[in-house]
Amino acid sequence: MEYTEGGICAAKGFKASGMYCGLKKSPADSGKDIKHKNDICLFASDALCNTAAVYTQNKVKGAPIIVTKKNLEKSGSKAFAVIANSKYANTCNADSEEKAQEMCALVANEMGINQEQVIVASTGVIGQTLPIEPIRKAVPELVKNLDYGKNLEAATAIMTTDTVKKEYAVKFKIGGKECAVGGMAKGSGMIHPNMATTLNFITTDCAVSVKMLEKALGEIVKVTYNCLSIDGDTSTNDMVSLMANGLAGSDEIADESEDFEIFKQALCEVMTNLTRMLAKDGEGASKLLECTCSSAPDKDTAITVAKSVVCSSLFKAAMFGEDANWGRIACAIGYADAQFDIEKIDVDLRSKAGVICVCRSGIGTPFSEEEASRVLAEDEIYIDINLNQGEESATAWGCDLTYDYVKINGDYRT
Amino acid sequence: MEYTEGGICAAKGFKASGMYCGLKKSPADSGKDIKHKNDICLFASDALCNTAAVYTQNKVKGAPIIVTKKNLEKSGSKAFAVIANSKYANTCNADSEEKAQEMCALVANEMGINQEQVIVASTGVIGQTLPIEPIRKAVPELVKNLDYGKNLEAATAIMTTDTVKKEYAVKFKIGGKECAVGGMAKGSGMIHPNMATTLNFITTDCAVSVKMLEKALGEIVKVTYNCLSIDGDTSTNDMVSLMANGLAGSDEIADESEDFEIFKQALCEVMTNLTRMLAKDGEGASKLLECTCSSAPDKDTAITVAKSVVCSSLFKAAMFGEDANWGRIACAIGYADAQFDIEKIDVDLRSKAGVICVCRSGIGTPFSEEEASRVLAEDEIYIDINLNQGEESATAWGCDLTYDYVKINGDYRT
Repeated sequence: MEYTEGGICAAKGFKASGMYCGLKKSPADSGKDIKHKNDICLFASDALCNTAAVYTQNKVKGAPIIVTKKNLEKSGSKAFAVIANSKYANTCNADSEEKAQEMCALVANEMGINQEQVIVASTGVIGQTLPIEPIRKAVPELVKNLDYGKNLEAATAIMTTDTVKKEYAVKFKIGGKECAVGGMAKGSGMIHPNMATTLNFITTDCAVSVKMLEKALGEIVKVTYNCLSIDGDTSTNDMVSLMANGLAGSDEIADESEDFEIFKQALCEVMTNLTRMLAKDGEGASKLLECTCSSAPDKDTAITVAKSVVCSSLFKAAMFGEDANWGRIACAIGYADAQFDIEKIDVDLRSKAGVICVCRSGIGTPFSEEEASRVLAEDEIYIDINLNQGEESATAWGCDLTYDYVKINGDYRT
Repeated sequence: MEYTEGGICAAKGFKASGMYCGLKKSPADSGKDIKHKNDICLFASDALCNTAAVYTQNKVKGAPIIVTKKNLEKSGSKAFAVIANSKYANTCNADSEEKAQEMCALVANEMGINQEQVIVASTGVIGQTLPIEPIRKAVPELVKNLDYGKNLEAATAIMTTDTVKKEYAVKFKIGGKECAVGGMAKGSGMIHPNMATTLNFITTDCAVSVKMLEKALGEIVKVTYNCLSIDGDTSTNDMVSLMANGLAGSDEIADESEDFEIFKQALCEVMTNLTRMLAKDGEGASKLLECTCSSAPDKDTAITVAKSVVCSSLFKAAMFGEDANWGRIACAIGYADAQFDIEKIDVDLRSKAGVICVCRSGIGTPFSEEEASRVLAEDEIYIDINLNQGEESATAWGCDLTYDYVKINGDYRT
């Protein structure tokens, strides 16, 4: 298992393209420091892909979610291509569903494929009408420009308040054949995934049955994206899609074989790294927070406790202030919705500058404020919670709460 | 039902006192603009009170919560006095429970009452050792200074990051006798009550049985404090106590009579007003947010939807920015954990400057951004959600998310 370049194009047979079509304000007009101006992208596989997807559990579902779900149902979970735009969520408008369908139809017509084999995704402001004309003009160009090395063009097109593009890929072997799993993701606010997170697209050239893709995606989403929170707000447009085109030439994974375990390991590595990138680039974030809850009686308790800590506004603000106010960790552990004995818990705060022990058996331990300041000055902070009452562990990711989060979200639509 | 001055001393036979004993830094040393320097208070009734209390559901319970609960169990829900301090939560230290007990004993000895008839409460930093010596010195003076008009001395002593004291009282008649219900509360962060909220003390001179006090408190907490959220963090030290000394001379309320309804109405008015004060003075808040969900299929759905909106960090930040980004309301309604039809929902944003209609039947409606800016420039914003699918309604209270929230909580302990 080895890191490789290429993001969604790391796997054989996946082409991408991206461009600026006029949905976002031009960098000159926006008055903001926008480093990424692409606002629409397309990616496609040379061969029809077995596909799995998970969607937001928000009852307000973006039209792209509704259309993608219907398409994959009709196509028997087969897809050729994904079209995605930023700036408009295409959600809560009277014509949203019609426009999401048109986006699929435009791609299908131009590529000569079936409309149901297209996935559509949108991210941006909810409730503002998506201008379709720029997309109509852009699609022929996007199709013409599809290329194996253009993953970056696509990864930048799905950025909204993201400050960095998010891509990760690994290569590995299955049955002697070189395979890859790669992905791209966008953050960075309205992130508190429930069964999925904001736009995430994963590709692989392994041959995997739809059933096993769904199984792998479900398992890994639970311990990666679903353990991420930027601000506690579950978006209306969250989606993860996983497409497998089989072009690596490996035998199809159709049951819980050793090959399936290797594939899951690769998928987990890609999704964990994308999750960390999403957390680190959370809106306004200055620090990544990674909380691991170990020795829990069961996996769900470990997840619930770890998430409760990274979701606490008070703890997040304390981390921004580099203040070792561990009482806020104790408080967040205490209101986690799970059953465990609070009097057995140990807590450490850790970074590459060192470790401070703040709590043993539920009681505060004295620590040097000076050393704590040094530990918390780093930009990646680890919170280690040992429940001392079982064998299971889980990690959750988040970020600090900063002035910039408030600034960005006080004035998001302009 | 009429507003009256006097807070916890509005009801006959309740005396209070408060002072600075040295727990807080002195205003000169703190380097902060502290308008309230009292840090300890006592209040007491001339007659033994029937008492009801509700406590935080956080699994990490402050020692004062544990001790108060035991005391009221032992005393048969009877209390004479309440001692409360700020600055230290007296929670998660090895000697916390012992010190909470000592605080009760100090008061009991000085007043010549039973230790189990004393309620103790603490608010402040979790996990830092409470200095008991200043409290030992303070108690005799607190007892000596008890007086009927000193409610303000007490109300200021429980303030932490609160910027204003919070008191409310009403007077009314039961069976021809003049009665009062009054209360005081402290905020202003770590507020997301679950069965109770941060320190709240209510007094009345009505005669009410313990059973009916508990019933009234349970019912009213559910629709007042439990519908309040500043930051989603449920404190370890939340408590509401309700003490009835019967000195108004009215007949005891011992069942669900007409008198009970009058008493509940008075209690609801006091607790609703304290809830609004807590929301408006939320840490760093510049605006009160009051969200009413009407025409819901049931009460719990109405509460869940209204709370979901006032809890959304994204919506709170948008309100700080005076940005009518109603998609964030739609998003928060959508992830509320309740069952309802999203396509019937209407949403208005309202203040004393006017009303803007932003959503009808789940679809965005065009509105004037200029008018929206005028409406949102006010410091009390009302969000009216009509589910159009039932008869029940509920209100939730919160505040905007501001730079100052981050500032206060980045550096809370110093």
